[in-house]
Amino acid sequence: MLLVNGEPAACVDPRDRGLQYGDGVFETITVRGGKPELWDAHLERLMAGCRVLDIPSPDPEQLAQEVAQVTADEIRCVAKLVITRGAGGRGYRKPDEPKPTRLVMRSPFPDYPSDWSDSGVVVRLCRTPLGLNPALAGLKHLNRLEQVMARNEWQNPEIAEGLMRDSEGFVVEGTMSNLFLVDRGTLVTPRLDRCGVAGVMRNRVLELAKSLGIPAREERVTLATLQQAEGAFLTNSLLRMWPIRILKGQDCPRATITATLKSALDRVLEG
Amino acid sequence: MLLVNGEPAACVDPRDRGLQYGDGVFETITVRGGKPELWDAHLERLMAGCRVLDIPSPDPEQLAQEVAQVTADEIRCVAKLVITRGAGGRGYRKPDEPKPTRLVMRSPFPDYPSDWSDSGVVVRLCRTPLGLNPALAGLKHLNRLEQVMARNEWQNPEIAEGLMRDSEGFVVEGTMSNLFLVDRGTLVTPRLDRCGVAGVMRNRVLELAKSLGIPAREERVTLATLQQAEGAFLTNSLLRMWPIRILKGQDCPRATITATLKSALDRVLEG
Repeated sequence: MLLVNGEPAACVDPRDRGLQYGDGVFETITVRGGKPELWDAHLERLMAGCRVLDIPSPDPEQLAQEVAQVTADEIRCVAKLVITRGAGGRGYRKPDEPKPTRLVMRSPFPDYPSDWSDSGVVVRLCRTPLGLNPALAGLKHLNRLEQVMARNEWQNPEIAEGLMRDSEGFVVEGTMSNLFLVDRGTLVTPRLDRCGVAGVMRNRVLELAKSLGIPAREERVTLATLQQAEGAFLTNSLLRMWPIRILKGQDCPRATITATLKSALDRVLEG
Repeated sequence: MLLVNGEPAACVDPRDRGLQYGDGVFETITVRGGKPELWDAHLERLMAGCRVLDIPSPDPEQLAQEVAQVTADEIRCVAKLVITRGAGGRGYRKPDEPKPTRLVMRSPFPDYPSDWSDSGVVVRLCRTPLGLNPALAGLKHLNRLEQVMARNEWQNPEIAEGLMRDSEGFVVEGTMSNLFLVDRGTLVTPRLDRCGVAGVMRNRVLELAKSLGIPAREERVTLATLQQAEGAFLTNSLLRMWPIRILKGQDCPRATITATLKSALDRVLEG
């Protein structure tokens, strides 16, 4: 099920700047029983991305209605929203009167092994680096070739995720998830001011930590810091939270904070 | 005029990874009197890009025939080729049996002011940086948001191009062109081992310099080196070669080497 500018369609203009340049943003959302999880946060990030790229923002009510339309009758599925600058313009120069393209797509929920959420996951380290670009950092934009290259460094299905470092060697995130670690009782997550995607679930976890009185900070994270951590976990809007069980072949300890946050998160999201 | 996998069409699958992730490569080619300029070099780069991204390469003869088909009867136009990994795969992970998408498009030749080629152009410096990623450096891939952001930093039509620096501050290229400068009689162009697009015309100019006995080297270029140069110029497959007349508001000298290369290039390309 897929809507293009509100119409059921299997067709996008090949001249769309989303295809030509990756000129757009997207969101990936868990929808349970017709209800998109963390909808306001996803919408806010989508709008913020449009503002940074100077793409006219979609109408929130129209988007919500289209998500409801494509996900109706599904117990659990994924809604993906894509907003591009549409076709037109001369080369990289944007059109004077852009007509954005709005995609609303449904996909099956990924069949992650059920024990990854509780027992934790095996994580590797990717060679493909993340380039530094403060102007694009944090955005969930359509330029995802770095993630495609990184994700295709391994085939072993027992490895759940690969961590990516920036071009200076700092650990930033997974190919599809954000990273947290626990350092002497403090929750730490990499700063995303130079690269990386500011995940909606990452933000929710930071808010939860605050409300639970768990000290938290964002900083540059070295591989050594991560390897010496009292525990680490991954987040995104589909998997929520996966403790890291094995990192680079080494057993990873399990911090109490991880369990505390996980229960709190499940409670909040299950309502 | 546009062919999608050989068929006249105005339609690409919205799930195409070219749109979802910028997962593909492209070429922009001048076609004069039905003849694509520097065809072998464009084809070679397209194939090399497919190899790096592990996308099955297109059939060269089929591509050549499709370019002839879309550009027939045009005195001068632009052919753009796009190869994506097609639809499929799970998230960033590529499909096990990819079915690439092949676009062959015709566009009008850009209406650059006729004196830019001889009298030179006005060039500015962009704020948007180029992120460093050796794995993708040199490729003409579909992740072009940095260029879109940089090109939209200015609206003044008298400014022909903006130069981009990498995240460490070295000058790398223009938003749509490669950069050369002349330093004490030697032709210098920025190294493209960490970011940037290895232009077909850039390579042709380096070959020409060699055949003419002009010393040339690739190196990291600082803004200071560029500003102290005896001359500088831009290249790409459409504009061929534009001397830089004004850089950052300062008059730029005109090196003899620029004129020598320009005549030689025109001679070679006009056959």
